[in-house]
Amino acid sequence: MSDKSIMTYETVALDEAEGALVILDQTKLPGEVKILHLTDQKDIWQAIYLLQVRGAPAIGVAAAFGVYLAAKEIKADTYEEFCEAFHQAKEYLNSSRPTAVNLSWALNRMEQVVIDNKEKPIPEIVELLRQESIEIKAEDVWMCRMIGEYGLTLIKDGDGILTHCNAGQLATSKYGTALAPIHLGREKGMNFRVFCDETRPLLQGARLSSFELYADGVDTTVICDNMASQVMKNGWVNAVFVGCDRVAANGDACNKIGTSGVAILAKYYGIPFYVLGPTSTIDMSIEKGEDIVIEQRPQEEVTEMWYKQRMAPQGVKAYNPAFDFADHELIAGIVTEYGIARPPYTESLKEIFRKKAEAQAEGKRHS
Amino acid sequence: MSDKSIMTYETVALDEAEGALVILDQTKLPGEVKILHLTDQKDIWQAIYLLQVRGAPAIGVAAAFGVYLAAKEIKADTYEEFCEAFHQAKEYLNSSRPTAVNLSWALNRMEQVVIDNKEKPIPEIVELLRQESIEIKAEDVWMCRMIGEYGLTLIKDGDGILTHCNAGQLATSKYGTALAPIHLGREKGMNFRVFCDETRPLLQGARLSSFELYADGVDTTVICDNMASQVMKNGWVNAVFVGCDRVAANGDACNKIGTSGVAILAKYYGIPFYVLGPTSTIDMSIEKGEDIVIEQRPQEEVTEMWYKQRMAPQGVKAYNPAFDFADHELIAGIVTEYGIARPPYTESLKEIFRKKAEAQAEGKRHS
Repeated sequence: MSDKSIMTYETVALDEAEGALVILDQTKLPGEVKILHLTDQKDIWQAIYLLQVRGAPAIGVAAAFGVYLAAKEIKADTYEEFCEAFHQAKEYLNSSRPTAVNLSWALNRMEQVVIDNKEKPIPEIVELLRQESIEIKAEDVWMCRMIGEYGLTLIKDGDGILTHCNAGQLATSKYGTALAPIHLGREKGMNFRVFCDETRPLLQGARLSSFELYADGVDTTVICDNMASQVMKNGWVNAVFVGCDRVAANGDACNKIGTSGVAILAKYYGIPFYVLGPTSTIDMSIEKGEDIVIEQRPQEEVTEMWYKQRMAPQGVKAYNPAFDFADHELIAGIVTEYGIARPPYTESLKEIFRKKAEAQAEGKRHS
Repeated sequence: MSDKSIMTYETVALDEAEGALVILDQTKLPGEVKILHLTDQKDIWQAIYLLQVRGAPAIGVAAAFGVYLAAKEIKADTYEEFCEAFHQAKEYLNSSRPTAVNLSWALNRMEQVVIDNKEKPIPEIVELLRQESIEIKAEDVWMCRMIGEYGLTLIKDGDGILTHCNAGQLATSKYGTALAPIHLGREKGMNFRVFCDETRPLLQGARLSSFELYADGVDTTVICDNMASQVMKNGWVNAVFVGCDRVAANGDACNKIGTSGVAILAKYYGIPFYVLGPTSTIDMSIEKGEDIVIEQRPQEEVTEMWYKQRMAPQGVKAYNPAFDFADHELIAGIVTEYGIARPPYTESLKEIFRKKAEAQAEGKRHS
């Protein structure tokens, strides 16, 4: 299987004929493109646990498909029996990554279907679960597509884009967030030149972003994080696109460690720096970036190169924050599925949420 | 041998009793502290060739000691025979790293002693060669010490310093350049907290700077290059100290890739960014940084983690410039052995060279 074949596959899919969850095994990337067809619940649990499927949205979709497949196999005579068995299956999958918000969100949403349709015959409930799981994925695809559409208005054919970490197709059902404009642009026949920060210590840029972009036919160049300044100075970057883990109400955008540095460099060189992510990552209850607690990770990620060989002397300390945040004053725009927020963000983000509420009231979650 | 013992050894030394060049094998760092006692010319050639001794000043000193040891062993009846044998020994060592300027500079200076003392008996010439090699090292130590003294006026006890790459003791006879104020400060009983950018792709910061600083009892923390912004934001950095490979007449300072990024971050956070290096790295014939041609290195240094395992997909390109330059407007001072140049550098660097010429005219190269 050629490494160019990834884009003909999806990160996570349901094979209805086979009754299987189909995923691209991300633990084998970038060395090997291995597609897994999982029918056994234990294998699905493992796939999430072992990060064979990763990225919050993708995990949610995988879990929804997984619990639907479990429901299909339940042998129950009564609703109560079915309900009990379903709950067990759901709790089992939910235990695969206890801190992943999207995992429990998707599984709870699936269970709600069971709860809401008590009066229906079991085969009909199973059919509704199938529809709900497909809907969860469709919403994810729609969200990423909208981010891609809005993001595409910010760049033009032939542009150079710099990105940090992986907020791409591999973390979602399709398109990704930060990389959605690139993939969507490719569908429209556009070409871009993308620079991927390797993103130390875990190298998500070198391993994942470069993989999915190259597979999509994008002119892809990996750089060490400390080369971003020179790439910008060379005039090769028209815009910076990054994802986000959490955005505060003032627009401060928390993302993979190194994001604040890239934002400062972009500002210095006069290059627009954009944050792309769904409204679900914007937390209006958090006033500013400083209020976001930053996860500290094991020092060995820094001192032991890819966990294989110690590169720094024993005894030397390492500092290893997982995230930092780009100050809102460095951000040219925050691109969501409901449009682009521009400074001042304290106003524009509220406007995005007004649009979202309006759209949801009109029931046109995805058009 | 404990990894704390390095500072009791020198990077490069002459053991006169043993007739040996003594070096710390840098290819074994940081895992192992191995001191090599080299008496054979082939072993000395190999030590330079294999980077067991590295860093322009250290290579020059090693070559001077090496060629002196060769001269001591020459069995010659006439000056002409001695001269011929010495020249062969010199050319042999010179072939170990043909592009290293300090190597040929030191060897030519040694040969000049032979040429200038034609009339003297051979044992006396050998003695003059011994003195010259010791003088070459003493000058290197003096230069680094002066950079250290001037650099120390810029920081105070307890300060946090961030450095990039390795411009330390391991690249010189003693003290280093960028790290000279730290080591000299330690001698004076001062304490600093130093953050070492790991410095991808070749990790000189993680491997070498952190090693020599930790061995000198400095509170040393290794960070990935992309964490420098967060460390500065935390308020942990009072000054940035970097070395330089070449400084242009306007003050633009070319140094290891990533230096320009660190300079921009320091400016953003209001932290003074200093370049430390000998006047020999200031090239007044080069007007500005853009005129310095930047070496491009193999892509595999980026895509293959420490040459062991491919981390980026086959086919994906990598960009791997060895250096970039910090724009002069980002530099708070350039610290040399003849004082600190301050903006505007077009004036202050000339003043440094006036001081140097004056000192040399007065014959007080090192006081």
